[in-house]
Amino acid sequence: MTSELIFVGLGLSGTDGMTVKAFNALKECDKIYAEFYTSMLIGTKVEDLEAALGKRVHVLYRAQVEECDDVIKDAMEMRVGFITAGDTMSATTHVDLRIQAAEAGIPVRVFHGISIFSACPTSLGLQHYKFGRTVTLPFLEENYHPKSPYDHIKENKDRGLHTMILLDIRADELRYMTAHQAIEWLMTAESEWGEGLIDDKTILCVATHVGCPDERVFAGYPQDLLKMDLGEPLHSLVLPGKLHFMEAFALVKFAGAPEEIIEDE
Amino acid sequence: MTSELIFVGLGLSGTDGMTVKAFNALKECDKIYAEFYTSMLIGTKVEDLEAALGKRVHVLYRAQVEECDDVIKDAMEMRVGFITAGDTMSATTHVDLRIQAAEAGIPVRVFHGISIFSACPTSLGLQHYKFGRTVTLPFLEENYHPKSPYDHIKENKDRGLHTMILLDIRADELRYMTAHQAIEWLMTAESEWGEGLIDDKTILCVATHVGCPDERVFAGYPQDLLKMDLGEPLHSLVLPGKLHFMEAFALVKFAGAPEEIIEDE
Repeated sequence: MTSELIFVGLGLSGTDGMTVKAFNALKECDKIYAEFYTSMLIGTKVEDLEAALGKRVHVLYRAQVEECDDVIKDAMEMRVGFITAGDTMSATTHVDLRIQAAEAGIPVRVFHGISIFSACPTSLGLQHYKFGRTVTLPFLEENYHPKSPYDHIKENKDRGLHTMILLDIRADELRYMTAHQAIEWLMTAESEWGEGLIDDKTILCVATHVGCPDERVFAGYPQDLLKMDLGEPLHSLVLPGKLHFMEAFALVKFAGAPEEIIEDE
Repeated sequence: MTSELIFVGLGLSGTDGMTVKAFNALKECDKIYAEFYTSMLIGTKVEDLEAALGKRVHVLYRAQVEECDDVIKDAMEMRVGFITAGDTMSATTHVDLRIQAAEAGIPVRVFHGISIFSACPTSLGLQHYKFGRTVTLPFLEENYHPKSPYDHIKENKDRGLHTMILLDIRADELRYMTAHQAIEWLMTAESEWGEGLIDDKTILCVATHVGCPDERVFAGYPQDLLKMDLGEPLHSLVLPGKLHFMEAFALVKFAGAPEEIIEDE
């Protein structure tokens, strides 16, 4: 058998969200490992993937990926697929796995997947190049409320840049932060630090189930969004910086933003 | 016939770089328009796409997209596909087209494509969330050397953030900026403004033909990269900020960066 390790990003939803070439490559694999604790495929069970590919999919726990032993051992003797939701290499452990494969002399191929980093701006009609650094909001533990996400969003906003705000995913505990929780996170941070990141007239954008047939987008003021039913996670949040006319128009037209944001620009 | 406008991002290369669901959707279209002047599918001719889809692909000029008339008129009467390389909605004119479709009451579906914004970090082993705003280097016209790209890269670097540097594409003139031209752009800018963005010991990363089977990555000092044959465009350039150990290790292992960058961190 051929020794090879094939990294595949499955995209955001479904068994048909990966590229045609990734699908063809996975069908030629002798064994397939999946890592779903750093990301998640919306509305798709492992069994659906197994049926689409006609192969068993071995789901790895966090510790198994961090050790990498099984994956590397198998990839020395056969063609192994390593699949993740979104794009591949999004977690440091994936890069580590690729490095270990290289050190073991295993040939590697990488098949890119649709990533929330590009899909979320697309869905909202926001221009990708105007996004600053990305921020992740962690679930608050008792007495733990880190300030850096607040600072980084503020830094972007002060420069007129949009911020993609990723919400905590703890797939192993089945906990996914909602946009409502994220908005409350930011409002709590504002009342704590008061540097003027967010107030009642700050426009926020929410994209839910990005890349799925039931994807929806919302834009509005914090209190209005908090009153709306945004549906089940996964949710993404964007705090926009300076909006181009066409961006503001798209948010009004597609995401229900108040029309006054067009005049404000 | 069904009135519909389907936006599809084809990804970065080949006729199999789009998602399985996008491919299936395009096969059901009555007419397909393509826009290839803001982006380009590497190593793939329009005829290849036509053969894969079993349909004619009508390539639009810039003025035709900006007017949108034909696309909207057809989409009122049939199922129309509007395809672009990379992800869809990357240009303001695409968002405008979507808005016009909405105003004409045409149902719209969006199929995301692999974007250079996520694929380039993946290929280099750099973490996406550590990228600041994206910068595009324009070809220099006589006496035209804008300072803003230099400033924006410097701003990112000062914050420890990586910068994705997109290189000018003028598909209608068959001109594509190479990484060598881009490095010279930055060195000229440095000698003009001298604020310390780049010197002989600045690591730069180059990714060529990202998403293609012949994708390659390079990392090294400016003078060393200038001496190397980096192959044909399309090229992407990254000026990294503060490197995580695993990022530095990946650049050494996969892109030929000098080992001393690991010790420097």
